[in-house]
Amino acid sequence: MNIAIVGLGLMGGSLALSLRAKDYINKIVGYDHNEEHKKTALELNLVDEIVEFELVKKCDVIFLAIPVNGVIASLEKLTDVSQDVTIIDLGSTKEKIISSVPPIIRKNFVAAHPMTGTENFGPTAAIEGLYEDKVVVLCDLEDSGKHQCETAKKIFTSLNMRKSFMRGAEHDRHAAFISHMPHAISYSIANTVMKQENKRNILALAAGGFRSMSRLAKSSPNMWEDIFRQNKTNLIEAIELFEDELTELKEAILSDEWEKVHQEMKDGNKLHDILD
Amino acid sequence: MNIAIVGLGLMGGSLALSLRAKDYINKIVGYDHNEEHKKTALELNLVDEIVEFELVKKCDVIFLAIPVNGVIASLEKLTDVSQDVTIIDLGSTKEKIISSVPPIIRKNFVAAHPMTGTENFGPTAAIEGLYEDKVVVLCDLEDSGKHQCETAKKIFTSLNMRKSFMRGAEHDRHAAFISHMPHAISYSIANTVMKQENKRNILALAAGGFRSMSRLAKSSPNMWEDIFRQNKTNLIEAIELFEDELTELKEAILSDEWEKVHQEMKDGNKLHDILD
Repeated sequence: MNIAIVGLGLMGGSLALSLRAKDYINKIVGYDHNEEHKKTALELNLVDEIVEFELVKKCDVIFLAIPVNGVIASLEKLTDVSQDVTIIDLGSTKEKIISSVPPIIRKNFVAAHPMTGTENFGPTAAIEGLYEDKVVVLCDLEDSGKHQCETAKKIFTSLNMRKSFMRGAEHDRHAAFISHMPHAISYSIANTVMKQENKRNILALAAGGFRSMSRLAKSSPNMWEDIFRQNKTNLIEAIELFEDELTELKEAILSDEWEKVHQEMKDGNKLHDILD
Repeated sequence: MNIAIVGLGLMGGSLALSLRAKDYINKIVGYDHNEEHKKTALELNLVDEIVEFELVKKCDVIFLAIPVNGVIASLEKLTDVSQDVTIIDLGSTKEKIISSVPPIIRKNFVAAHPMTGTENFGPTAAIEGLYEDKVVVLCDLEDSGKHQCETAKKIFTSLNMRKSFMRGAEHDRHAAFISHMPHAISYSIANTVMKQENKRNILALAAGGFRSMSRLAKSSPNMWEDIFRQNKTNLIEAIELFEDELTELKEAILSDEWEKVHQEMKDGNKLHDILD
């Protein structure tokens, strides 16, 4: 199987590293619109070869590992692939992408979201094992071709990923709560502290808690602007529900309702009975 | 030097583990108001002996590693220690504690806040190395006795901690931004997701980002209720500045001001130029 990876950053680069070891893979070629990324990807041996965009169409499988608006633009340029080609996107939103797939290649297309990542980006952020034992959400598979579904499942299974199937709309709402809203909050925490006059003094004291809560604020603005655009409605809903929750806690603190404050913290503790 | 540790949870237990290896330490005794904690601390070999509260007064150094309201209550019971004894609290707030120290033991007392911890609590959470290479904030040292200052510095230096000196009021404001406000937010993120009907489905998809942002929601309600009480004014200010920041981001998303959204994310990225 020949693989093309469009976008050689954290997601695409890590995918290349993981797929290289698989014996059903013949060759991995890469494309990136950023010249620096192309060079770095070759230097790091992420892919066997860098090709022009036109040539990715010759591969059996094309991964789109680029910001979500880029996925939509790329699909427009892939309408002439043969009917055996499988196109898999790895975007963090699904509904807008799925509804934008040109009908002529709808069967070629598989909508996937691997629930993994780090705050780092670019080819140097690529790490082997990023996908190992993580969940991949596959959306609206009934509209993808049988061959394409099988190909996608084979690849994700070979990466030891756990597959979860759902509608694109359902995915986007879930993702707003567990990923997109927390990213918005992390950027805002970072900016709140950065606006303090003595930010350097404050940060000199930063321990693990602050590092956890501000880590996502390191994420790529290019990638996250697109995600926020595409999942705007769900994101706003999630942010507003969070704001209500925080306001409730704040009001309880302000009015010395300590039993209520305590109960809200105990409720928060329960998350980890489910999560761990 | 004989050491007493009052409170054998994460902070006190980890301190015991780190101090055991030091050759200037003769004996470490422990006290906890929780019978289970006493047993567990002995089983885990955190301390040499469990003693009654009265007996901690016979040690050279008494660490108060308990919730901050407990620190204030304990200081009331330590007014009869000899003038050579050093009492060090490890609480996350400083101003209220310092102003509550009975004048007769003010010189005995050193206000310290080690900027370290994990979301876990109780004796089983104790880990060696928790203090290693971390910052300890020492407040209002000019009001502590010379012998007590030297003793505290000697101990924290032997733990390889970096010392930072400031006023209690200054500490509390910094701590509100880098620690207390982020904890309040983490509890609220956890509760927002827990109130979703399909929380189990949502959490099945949770990846590293959500785990980072909800980790602090696992923290002890007993400990954090006290901290929120004692640092209420600074905490509310920090939460409100964060709320303004998040509202600004939300409004920009809502009104499709994508350049502004992008800029706010780029600003957030800058935090890590300072922090890393």
